[in-house]
Amino acid sequence: VVKLQMITLTSDFGLRDSYVAQMKGTILSINPKATIVDITHEVEKFNIRMGAFMLSSAAPFFPKYTVHLAVIDPGVGTERRAIVIQTKQTFFVGPDNGVLMLAAKNQGIEHIYQLANSNFRLPKVFNTFHGRDIFAPVAAYLDSGIVPSEFGLEITEVVEPQFVSVNSKYDLLTGEILHIDSFGNLITNITLQEASFANTVNVKLLNQKLTLPFCKTYGQAQPGQAIALVGSHGFLEIAVNQGNASDKFRIKPGDIIEVVFRV
Amino acid sequence: VVKLQMITLTSDFGLRDSYVAQMKGTILSINPKATIVDITHEVEKFNIRMGAFMLSSAAPFFPKYTVHLAVIDPGVGTERRAIVIQTKQTFFVGPDNGVLMLAAKNQGIEHIYQLANSNFRLPKVFNTFHGRDIFAPVAAYLDSGIVPSEFGLEITEVVEPQFVSVNSKYDLLTGEILHIDSFGNLITNITLQEASFANTVNVKLLNQKLTLPFCKTYGQAQPGQAIALVGSHGFLEIAVNQGNASDKFRIKPGDIIEVVFRV
Amino acid sequence: VVKLQMITLTSDFGLRDSYVAQMKGTILSINPKATIVDITHEVEKFNIRMGAFMLSSAAPFFPKYTVHLAVIDPGVGTERRAIVIQTKQTFFVGPDNGVLMLAAKNQGIEHIYQLANSNFRLPKVFNTFHGRDIFAPVAAYLDSGIVPSEFGLEITEVVEPQFVSVNSKYDLLTGEILHIDSFGNLITNITLQEASFANTVNVKLLNQKLTLPFCKTYGQAQPGQAIALVGSHGFLEIAVNQGNASDKFRIKPGDIIEVVFRV
Repeated sequence: VVKLQMITLTSDFGLRDSYVAQMKGTILSINPKATIVDITHEVEKFNIRMGAFMLSSAAPFFPKYTVHLAVIDPGVGTERRAIVIQTKQTFFVGPDNGVLMLAAKNQGIEHIYQLANSNFRLPKVFNTFHGRDIFAPVAAYLDSGIVPSEFGLEITEVVEPQFVSVNSKYDLLTGEILHIDSFGNLITNITLQEASFANTVNVKLLNQKLTLPFCKTYGQAQPGQAIALVGSHGFLEIAVNQGNASDKFRIKPGDIIEVVFRV
Repeated sequence: VVKLQMITLTSDFGLRDSYVAQMKGTILSINPKATIVDITHEVEKFNIRMGAFMLSSAAPFFPKYTVHLAVIDPGVGTERRAIVIQTKQTFFVGPDNGVLMLAAKNQGIEHIYQLANSNFRLPKVFNTFHGRDIFAPVAAYLDSGIVPSEFGLEITEVVEPQFVSVNSKYDLLTGEILHIDSFGNLITNITLQEASFANTVNVKLLNQKLTLPFCKTYGQAQPGQAIALVGSHGFLEIAVNQGNASDKFRIKPGDIIEVVFRV
Repeated sequence: VVKLQMITLTSDFGLRDSYVAQMKGTILSINPKATIVDITHEVEKFNIRMGAFMLSSAAPFFPKYTVHLAVIDPGVGTERRAIVIQTKQTFFVGPDNGVLMLAAKNQGIEHIYQLANSNFRLPKVFNTFHGRDIFAPVAAYLDSGIVPSEFGLEITEVVEPQFVSVNSKYDLLTGEILHIDSFGNLITNITLQEASFANTVNVKLLNQKLTLPFCKTYGQAQPGQAIALVGSHGFLEIAVNQGNASDKFRIKPGDIIEVVFRV
């Protein structure tokens, strides 16, 4: 018998309000032994892509059978469905708006169920806070051993996130800035498999053409020097050693990056 | 025998300093098995009302016998008393300045004791940090089964918070903005029992007269549209779907709201 | 047999990204029963001094055998060494750049080992994230009972932080602002042993000469009044009751403070 006991939380609720604590109290009331770990609650409000990126960057480091709950939910209380995804390794719980899909697909999706069984909800469901009233109880029950088919019917068609993919044409790769972390590092959607580099990389960011040293780590450069490297996410990253690349180049998430791919 | 093992923390200490960690270390040194959950540490500095609202919004979702510790304590080290409140469900520990009373009254207060027994403190008590040196040890001892009468004498008169109550006159309800959450939603102190509405609500916010659709959830409106609804706290709320009502109407906590109550 | 089960985390990663969660997932995958407590993740980027101060302010309040992991690591992936320090009470894990030394020296250093054994790392080590790939596994293995000499050879010379010490000349003490907390309190590096005061203290902050009442706690002063006191860290502190001393006097960390020491 497998004993599931770990739950992660990802949301855009922030840490100033008590919304996250309301979810944790709900989980611990159902399953007092659950170990709850925050991935982040500082996802930009309603930014499904950033939530999907955060969840997919952290989920691989958690134990098998962890339950991952993600609530970036601009459509809360509308017709959008609530789902649980069972993968080869673990479970993902949240709204059917794409926020779970990046992480779930990486692990291999096995089954998806709609959350419809009102036995696994708080007695009164508010239309504005399914995170607490529907998703948190489901995560807690999953974590205490309830099988996912108990929550509702299996479904096959779900919302897929439309994140920009990388285009390659001649010697040029065109991708985008997926995320800017709190160090100001520009994390692109270009993976190492797509581009391997020699000592330097030629990059175009907005109108700025740059030739950057291709480094193994930040500290290989002088303080203040801009570099390219493959970050710990496995993606091409533009960084400034002990500085802030986002400020230096005035780049924001979603901006286009062009990289010359030396064949 | 009941085994108490859950402690929540509410404070205005923020997460940048190590004050919260100092409290957690103190608790875990006394009771290594305690499960500690943060409600929030981002209460505005010295804002007892905001602390009281945060605690009362989250406490109902935690298991029976949880110990709730709240430290918004502008009078730390002065004559203000330190107390533990026993309710029908749980315990509240903190300064006697009103911060505990909203949540405690909702649960039904049974006994209040002054914290005076120096056996349940850190060996050296600093005048500036009773959160760590007095309150955290009391919470940890309560959580490990010490009965509250061990801490000091029972008292009956405590400081009551002076939060504005709702006035109704003719067809007009006059309340106030209790809190603005990180989504910019304006949470009033008007409960659903006090005002039930048809399809629209007439509201006056500062000098702005508004007729708002009365919705069940945010997503029922167009993005950017202002609405009224009963939020997950059970209070009347003014919101902007996928936007920020506080910015739109330039409203801050404590501002007056008038609502036309259709009889 | 001692069962180690507690790990603290200190970093400059912030709570917006998923870096902290990636470390926690890594720890819990190795040691699912570990209790993980955040000291702070809001250390100013690359500010080793602030990290050292945060760790040393919180570590004394944690139980014996706690493992303290600190990752302020501007030299990640370069030649700088990774170390574990064994003190009389506990373990410290992190880069050899001084961030661990303030806290470790306070407890009495017994042994220092270099982290070299690749059996106690994630299978793939990224040059940019040793916090997750090297330090988190070591903390988890220490916490599950692996002895520190398993990780690598004992070393004796490590990097010592160069924090300004207090100078006294005639009746003048010259120190510096070690840290400004989120209340705006100016925490100096002058300890009570170095200066004991009567009712008032004469202080020079930048060009401002001040005569401040020497208080036992903030609430002894009027709201808005500036005072001097010995804070809960044991250091001389300049504060404004219910106000912000950093804003009032325009002081930042590292600024010099002169105090007239009445003999």
